[in-house]
Amino acid sequence: MGTVISAAVLSAPGASMEVQRFQRPQLEPGAILLKTLGSEVCGTDVHLAKGQLAGVPYPIIPGHVSVGVIDEIGDGDPVLDVDGRPLAPGQVVTFLDVYGTCGRCWYCTVAHATTRCPSRLVYGVTLSAHEGLLGGWSEYIYLRPGVHIVPLPPELDWRAFLAAGCGMPTALHAVSLGDVQFGDTVLVQGAGPVGLSAAVLAQLRGAGQVIVVGGPEVRLSAARRFGADATIDIAATTEQERLAAVRELTHGRGADVTIEATGVPAAVPEGMRLTRDAGRYVVVGQYTDVGDASLNPHLDLNQKHLDVRGCWGSDVGHVYRSVQVMAKYSEQFPWTELISAEYDLAHTQDALDDVAAQRVVKALIVP
Amino acid sequence: MGTVISAAVLSAPGASMEVQRFQRPQLEPGAILLKTLGSEVCGTDVHLAKGQLAGVPYPIIPGHVSVGVIDEIGDGDPVLDVDGRPLAPGQVVTFLDVYGTCGRCWYCTVAHATTRCPSRLVYGVTLSAHEGLLGGWSEYIYLRPGVHIVPLPPELDWRAFLAAGCGMPTALHAVSLGDVQFGDTVLVQGAGPVGLSAAVLAQLRGAGQVIVVGGPEVRLSAARRFGADATIDIAATTEQERLAAVRELTHGRGADVTIEATGVPAAVPEGMRLTRDAGRYVVVGQYTDVGDASLNPHLDLNQKHLDVRGCWGSDVGHVYRSVQVMAKYSEQFPWTELISAEYDLAHTQDALDDVAAQRVVKALIVP
Amino acid sequence: MGTVISAAVLSAPGASMEVQRFQRPQLEPGAILLKTLGSEVCGTDVHLAKGQLAGVPYPIIPGHVSVGVIDEIGDGDPVLDVDGRPLAPGQVVTFLDVYGTCGRCWYCTVAHATTRCPSRLVYGVTLSAHEGLLGGWSEYIYLRPGVHIVPLPPELDWRAFLAAGCGMPTALHAVSLGDVQFGDTVLVQGAGPVGLSAAVLAQLRGAGQVIVVGGPEVRLSAARRFGADATIDIAATTEQERLAAVRELTHGRGADVTIEATGVPAAVPEGMRLTRDAGRYVVVGQYTDVGDASLNPHLDLNQKHLDVRGCWGSDVGHVYRSVQVMAKYSEQFPWTELISAEYDLAHTQDALDDVAAQRVVKALIVP
Amino acid sequence: MGTVISAAVLSAPGASMEVQRFQRPQLEPGAILLKTLGSEVCGTDVHLAKGQLAGVPYPIIPGHVSVGVIDEIGDGDPVLDVDGRPLAPGQVVTFLDVYGTCGRCWYCTVAHATTRCPSRLVYGVTLSAHEGLLGGWSEYIYLRPGVHIVPLPPELDWRAFLAAGCGMPTALHAVSLGDVQFGDTVLVQGAGPVGLSAAVLAQLRGAGQVIVVGGPEVRLSAARRFGADATIDIAATTEQERLAAVRELTHGRGADVTIEATGVPAAVPEGMRLTRDAGRYVVVGQYTDVGDASLNPHLDLNQKHLDVRGCWGSDVGHVYRSVQVMAKYSEQFPWTELISAEYDLAHTQDALDDVAAQRVVKALIVP
Repeated sequence: MGTVISAAVLSAPGASMEVQRFQRPQLEPGAILLKTLGSEVCGTDVHLAKGQLAGVPYPIIPGHVSVGVIDEIGDGDPVLDVDGRPLAPGQVVTFLDVYGTCGRCWYCTVAHATTRCPSRLVYGVTLSAHEGLLGGWSEYIYLRPGVHIVPLPPELDWRAFLAAGCGMPTALHAVSLGDVQFGDTVLVQGAGPVGLSAAVLAQLRGAGQVIVVGGPEVRLSAARRFGADATIDIAATTEQERLAAVRELTHGRGADVTIEATGVPAAVPEGMRLTRDAGRYVVVGQYTDVGDASLNPHLDLNQKHLDVRGCWGSDVGHVYRSVQVMAKYSEQFPWTELISAEYDLAHTQDALDDVAAQRVVKALIVP
Repeated sequence: MGTVISAAVLSAPGASMEVQRFQRPQLEPGAILLKTLGSEVCGTDVHLAKGQLAGVPYPIIPGHVSVGVIDEIGDGDPVLDVDGRPLAPGQVVTFLDVYGTCGRCWYCTVAHATTRCPSRLVYGVTLSAHEGLLGGWSEYIYLRPGVHIVPLPPELDWRAFLAAGCGMPTALHAVSLGDVQFGDTVLVQGAGPVGLSAAVLAQLRGAGQVIVVGGPEVRLSAARRFGADATIDIAATTEQERLAAVRELTHGRGADVTIEATGVPAAVPEGMRLTRDAGRYVVVGQYTDVGDASLNPHLDLNQKHLDVRGCWGSDVGHVYRSVQVMAKYSEQFPWTELISAEYDLAHTQDALDDVAAQRVVKALIVP
Repeated sequence: MGTVISAAVLSAPGASMEVQRFQRPQLEPGAILLKTLGSEVCGTDVHLAKGQLAGVPYPIIPGHVSVGVIDEIGDGDPVLDVDGRPLAPGQVVTFLDVYGTCGRCWYCTVAHATTRCPSRLVYGVTLSAHEGLLGGWSEYIYLRPGVHIVPLPPELDWRAFLAAGCGMPTALHAVSLGDVQFGDTVLVQGAGPVGLSAAVLAQLRGAGQVIVVGGPEVRLSAARRFGADATIDIAATTEQERLAAVRELTHGRGADVTIEATGVPAAVPEGMRLTRDAGRYVVVGQYTDVGDASLNPHLDLNQKHLDVRGCWGSDVGHVYRSVQVMAKYSEQFPWTELISAEYDLAHTQDALDDVAAQRVVKALIVP
Repeated sequence: MGTVISAAVLSAPGASMEVQRFQRPQLEPGAILLKTLGSEVCGTDVHLAKGQLAGVPYPIIPGHVSVGVIDEIGDGDPVLDVDGRPLAPGQVVTFLDVYGTCGRCWYCTVAHATTRCPSRLVYGVTLSAHEGLLGGWSEYIYLRPGVHIVPLPPELDWRAFLAAGCGMPTALHAVSLGDVQFGDTVLVQGAGPVGLSAAVLAQLRGAGQVIVVGGPEVRLSAARRFGADATIDIAATTEQERLAAVRELTHGRGADVTIEATGVPAAVPEGMRLTRDAGRYVVVGQYTDVGDASLNPHLDLNQKHLDVRGCWGSDVGHVYRSVQVMAKYSEQFPWTELISAEYDLAHTQDALDDVAAQRVVKALIVP
């Protein structure tokens, strides 16, 4: 095993990706060094490259959802996976990108709202390359003591897991909040990674009908291959037409559950209206502040008796459960088809450009 | 028992109230004739007088929350109260103003969202005086077969019950949706009848702190007598000051649960911001359409991980439970103090004028 | 259309089934006459034949889950399906066997526990042949006004629907109560119709692993074809071995959710022990009183922090949702394979005998 | 401040309490030394003295619910209370007796069942006197880094807090699980500390009626002073009489919610029968294994559609919420009346004897 490690570094907002060399780290007790198999490229990485997120300690090594092989384990007590089993070199694992949830603050202990814990840091996003190999676009990833590690079962192809990527635990959180009942009509706004995963997971809650509103056609076509019963092209319809189409499919009522996964503020009032009275509406796609939206509190909330649930972040359980679900049902859903291209460390800038231009559905970094 | 019955009639939007005489009705099987003890005057009656509600079949006899003594019972099988006990002449009872929930439609049977059943009609609001004595501002009220009847226990003064009025089941529905946990800070926006009942009911969920934002001072003072720990005068503060004040009272977090009972669209985004991350926000006060409001989906919903719950209407359980709660706790809360004035049938116009001008806190019609 | 109708009648406990002839009934307004396509034979019918259920008004026409074609509709207002659409002759429909839920009693209106409404009657079980064609083992079925009717979508084969039979809405109710989370291990006790449906529905809640404990092997084999990851033969193992096997499959913890569908009292304490601490245990199989069971409240309930949920009966939503779910996912699950034999009206006794002797997995009556 | 500290030590099961002297400890960073104001004597301490609990590392300093004044704070970063505020010498605080919940295991992170975390240790119960001043019957208590600390607000008398004692967070957990709805009838089995707190908390969920079944009369009388509407003496009635009495009080239905707080196995099947169909039954009193109980799965669970919820342990939120609730409502409930006697460190054996003999309602150790 070599002593020099290559990683792709984003040194500042707007800078080009460059490969840098790091010394192989000494492991503290409880730490693990992972030899990277692959790491996801997601929309967040484009935001990072453009400097659209606050609080990012550039330079960083991007890549927050990754899979690797355990290469070395720090001395001391065994390091355990989430199920409490000791980990061993050679295992193929993923890990929760969120690091440092304190387990002690009021949000963690009283509100049980762990995704609002103020101590959270995120591999590949809010941990600096000065502090170590703390992102996935790297030959090796340094897992600090306390990182939550989940082995991938043999029946789950690591490429399939990365093809779903961070959209999967995000969607799993959102669909769980949506409280889907057997036979419900679930409408998904947005056909990106979160939307596609939501469309799949709706079926794994027994939805009777899944409708995806989004675009472009290549993504809507993927949604149909993943089991969506109907798709509506956002670019080819007016809001009024979409409302009419959804009503037509739902006996005039609207969707029982709607999952917003667009990032567009105007989608929120539209989503309320696409949902039936007394339905549930989960807002998970508004990751960044791109402005306000206007709604009618009487019609859209009160008289409608609507539940609206904002959904932020993922936690250990979401990643753990994503792995279990993908292991059992991945044959049913052709995740790996979504991978348009794989890039090595020398071409991570191309990956970012292709994702930003929507030239690819899913891109992986394979060091 | 006389054969001519006086009732106060609102013949058209904008018309003055006038007393009219009706023949005592023949009772069909399952019906009950109630001799009215009293009936509430509420904000809805002012809306009715001004013609601000759609679908009202004028002329109407107003009065949707009422108490009376059973005067006569139709032939046939015994008429049962909600508990299944046969009713008898002489009993003091109230009834659910909502009549005709079908129990068969999709909303009733599949969604279990009975307050969205399209068959609902409301005594004193959407039932015409041409059809009978179907409102409470009348010497007698005709309870059609199927009306849900709840006897008042002897320990519950009927004036106390009417002083709380329809604000009580409305607030009971809203506070139930708010999912208050022991020790939570509950913030109530609005100090009218719904807001005051919400402030009381928050304490009957074990709230650790109750904050009321509203006005005028006479209502805030009532809120404090009913147990509010802090009140904030909406007229004397800016939104920024209210936000700062609530944060100060909640370790910087905001309220765990907020109940909106204002009717003002701008209260909705403000209420979201007054609520803590991962808290619950119930919107119950937006009864009529008075315009839009603007919010930031990223900050106010998604990142905030906020639950927003629109709350529409009341049902049998809300009235039944209101009676049980008021019977046990009415000594603790001085409801009858809220009654500013009582009016006979000849003065119902004065009652409307006084309520519209906020010259009274609570007005009763006592025929 | 003829004026004489044949139906299979069970005249008394212990009697043999016999075909009797009935006059074609005059339809009252709101009623529907259904030409039967098929009707299920289930374990309840064996109980009925043996006189093991209380309150049965013999003679009865058995058959509580049935599918038919609308033959005639009573005069008057259109008759609506659960979605509110007018029904028309020629439509293929099923209906909720439970008739007469009152919608007015305390259980219906306050507790929202409609399956505990004391007014419920059941087609094929608690409605007498003296009152009409109120069971499915008949050429025609008389649907009284108010029966809840659900059309079968064209993509749902009526044989598949009957192959699942009343086990499907029963299991749907139970699995819903089980509150399955994505990736959970769901253990099903019992491999009969309810158990098989529960095993399927667990997957339609995103279970990560499904374990079925039961027998005989033909049923366990069906369970595996329907997606069970592991089966345990109840006849070939001790309780201790089953506990060890389940622990082995669940990192030592036990199942997250267990669904009891056996009818054997001793299964209940065993099921508690097969479930992990703080898991959910749904008891749905104990339909008749066949004795007591002993458990340890400290170990099995309190320290275990276990949720145990008794589950009784089905309601409109369960049947409606069953139809939606089977329409979307029936290709995935080979329901019709379960049908071992079909019997005409002259051979319903053979059907009962074969079901009682477990010579068949699923038997249908096809008049 | 002295360098020698006295504490009451239980050296082995069956031994008499004795006062021992300890050196004042050096504080590690994050630790706090508390000067004890008082500590509770509870039934668990009697179990400890008799050796009825497994896994106790004798010798121990008993006392798991305690209040003290912060005397000294370890060097380093500020130590924060549960709300995140820095703590300072002189503050009056309590703390969660459970220490060491790991926040990392599957139960903590995936199941969110923190009271089943296997790493939990308990002050005064499972921490040895060899390890330090880790129990409340001591002049000083050593709070290790990570102990969850909650300041008592000035309006909350520390004696009132200890009079409620560990019964309060235990009952708060149980009543929360009971999902009490406004106006519900709540029945409490047991009139000890957990039962009395449950009777109070039921009212702080808006129960319409509270019934306490237990004894002896001195405790039932306390229950009535704390707001119970009816009490039933367990010693003076048969199970059949108790069932009849509860049915009489509940329109023949049984309690909506029952909280078991007895420790007697036979109470569990009885409690199921005292609860209405589709009600909730929380089992919180079965702390130790004292044998089995027999029930009828058909009648008591399945047909009854009953929810049974085992409830184990308390967590940060339960103690935090107990403090908030007691601070707001302690004037309403006369907690300090429950204190029969206070004992200094030299008389802790007397305290144990008096509690074991039920000569006192509540005993405090005041060093």
